[in-house]
Amino acid sequence: MVADKGLAELGEFGLIERIQQQAEPAPFLRLGIGDDCSIQAVAADDELLTSTDLLLEGVHFNLQWTDFESLGCKSAAVNISDIAAMGGVPRSLYLGLAVPDALSVEQLDRFVAGFVAVAQAHGAVLAGGDTCRSSGPLVISVTAEGTAPRGQAVCRSGAGAGDLVFVSGTLGDSALALRLLQQGEQPSAPLAGRHHRPQARVSLGRRLAETGLATAMIDVSDGLVADLGHILKASGHGAVLQLQEIPLSPGFSEVLAHRPEWIELALTGGEDYELLFTVAAERADDIAQLAAELDLPLTRIGTLQGITGLQILQRDGRHYHFRRSGFDHFSGR
Amino acid sequence: MVADKGLAELGEFGLIERIQQQAEPAPFLRLGIGDDCSIQAVAADDELLTSTDLLLEGVHFNLQWTDFESLGCKSAAVNISDIAAMGGVPRSLYLGLAVPDALSVEQLDRFVAGFVAVAQAHGAVLAGGDTCRSSGPLVISVTAEGTAPRGQAVCRSGAGAGDLVFVSGTLGDSALALRLLQQGEQPSAPLAGRHHRPQARVSLGRRLAETGLATAMIDVSDGLVADLGHILKASGHGAVLQLQEIPLSPGFSEVLAHRPEWIELALTGGEDYELLFTVAAERADDIAQLAAELDLPLTRIGTLQGITGLQILQRDGRHYHFRRSGFDHFSGR
Repeated sequence: MVADKGLAELGEFGLIERIQQQAEPAPFLRLGIGDDCSIQAVAADDELLTSTDLLLEGVHFNLQWTDFESLGCKSAAVNISDIAAMGGVPRSLYLGLAVPDALSVEQLDRFVAGFVAVAQAHGAVLAGGDTCRSSGPLVISVTAEGTAPRGQAVCRSGAGAGDLVFVSGTLGDSALALRLLQQGEQPSAPLAGRHHRPQARVSLGRRLAETGLATAMIDVSDGLVADLGHILKASGHGAVLQLQEIPLSPGFSEVLAHRPEWIELALTGGEDYELLFTVAAERADDIAQLAAELDLPLTRIGTLQGITGLQILQRDGRHYHFRRSGFDHFSGR
Repeated sequence: MVADKGLAELGEFGLIERIQQQAEPAPFLRLGIGDDCSIQAVAADDELLTSTDLLLEGVHFNLQWTDFESLGCKSAAVNISDIAAMGGVPRSLYLGLAVPDALSVEQLDRFVAGFVAVAQAHGAVLAGGDTCRSSGPLVISVTAEGTAPRGQAVCRSGAGAGDLVFVSGTLGDSALALRLLQQGEQPSAPLAGRHHRPQARVSLGRRLAETGLATAMIDVSDGLVADLGHILKASGHGAVLQLQEIPLSPGFSEVLAHRPEWIELALTGGEDYELLFTVAAERADDIAQLAAELDLPLTRIGTLQGITGLQILQRDGRHYHFRRSGFDHFSGR
């Protein structure tokens, strides 16, 4: 069963020690890797935010297309993005790894290096985990804990009638990169970067929470249509989006010029990890100021209205009809 | 790809809603399943304890031998046991599930029912999770958060020279049940129960922490020798154990009468989830009182001494030499 002698010789406890060496201390972390639990202080004025994600080889990632450092970066970023989507500060990450025999110690080192680097970039630490051997795919489980001052965390349910819908950055780049890879084409470096090393919008999320600008918020992981659908369902509203307002990157627009039907990737492709949020109409100017402050596009793409569900209008005012409504891991749509 | 139509039709979001219906509220949980993160209050005098575990079909469990409700119970219990091993109170559990197509909605319902029942029995709640389809094994990731009053959590590193080594309950039952199952034999109901539905020793852990009786503590998940080894390594001591003092159940003793070499299962077999802890010699009487109070055997099995590593003495004073030193998920020993 032992294809990689290095990893088998290292053993479970050896691997944990090796990961432990890459983990950094933090003032709030009283005890990190190496006991039954981590021990942390949580400030009296803060609330605790927690999110967990599973990433499976063959479902969420393909080792043919990604290097291990990028995979480590992405594993941390997608979970930190959930903290960002509540307006929180990420604190501690927990990493579960089920490792196939074929992986080398060096590959695991690079994975952990990427993971820890992204955590550090956001002021978070690797505080614990679990490792075992996998006879099947590489399995990565990540749990992130963060904090937000009491009452500041932004939920999906707070959107009000007439609120404007905004999204950060550009949409569809990650899904476009994946589509090209699946077709055997090579995406441009900026597109590939959006897919392999997504950025969690932590600073934006914090500012939207502390200013009270966002009434509801979510990160775009399942695709714009599906994730806006989560906000609409939780808030009890409908929405109208303007198709021509969806922010697209130069690289996306370039491909779109030849394949106009791929606009769908910006609507239903997941894994952009941009923040999608609603704002009271009278505070739209504050969003423009925030965009300038953070040097990040924040684009108004629609409005919450007294309708059921979601309508997308084209430039000519006609309804856009899409075929997909976000990636569902079970139905495979 | 879709063998079980029910689960595919339910979809990822449908499954999450189904799980959400089984989750209970709690005063400290401001927001549970259904947003990007849970939101919790942590009392100002408390510290946060967090642990994560991965359980893989074929590595940690075999669906031939367990029913889904028991598997749910065990998945919650092994993670809660880590909170117990620090002397904490379990609060919130997070459940990641990668589900093969062959599983039915009913099987998943039973799994979640078992998981939630064990959480509730300890005053904890299911507060979040993640689900996806698995093309390989069933993968379960669990993260538990608990709390302990500031400074009370018991680490592995606090054992002092001359401290006595205690263990709760009996050892080896879970490993014996597994060994019998692996050999095609049917373990007795009490033995099988120890393997399929282990009990987390939360009340014991709390009492040992709040009284300050335990100087170091760990739960027996990898086996007595390996787990005591973790305490010795973290605390910088050696230990001598008395083989005849290892507490054995009637069922274990009965099998041992015919297969004396299986005593090894009590020394190196894992998954008993009893608490192993060290106590200053002058407080031994307090442990006897606590055992009576909790109606749970707390057995003195050895002493920390000025030696390197671990020695096990037989009744006649000779050293016992064992072949195994706990289960290592990578080396497969």
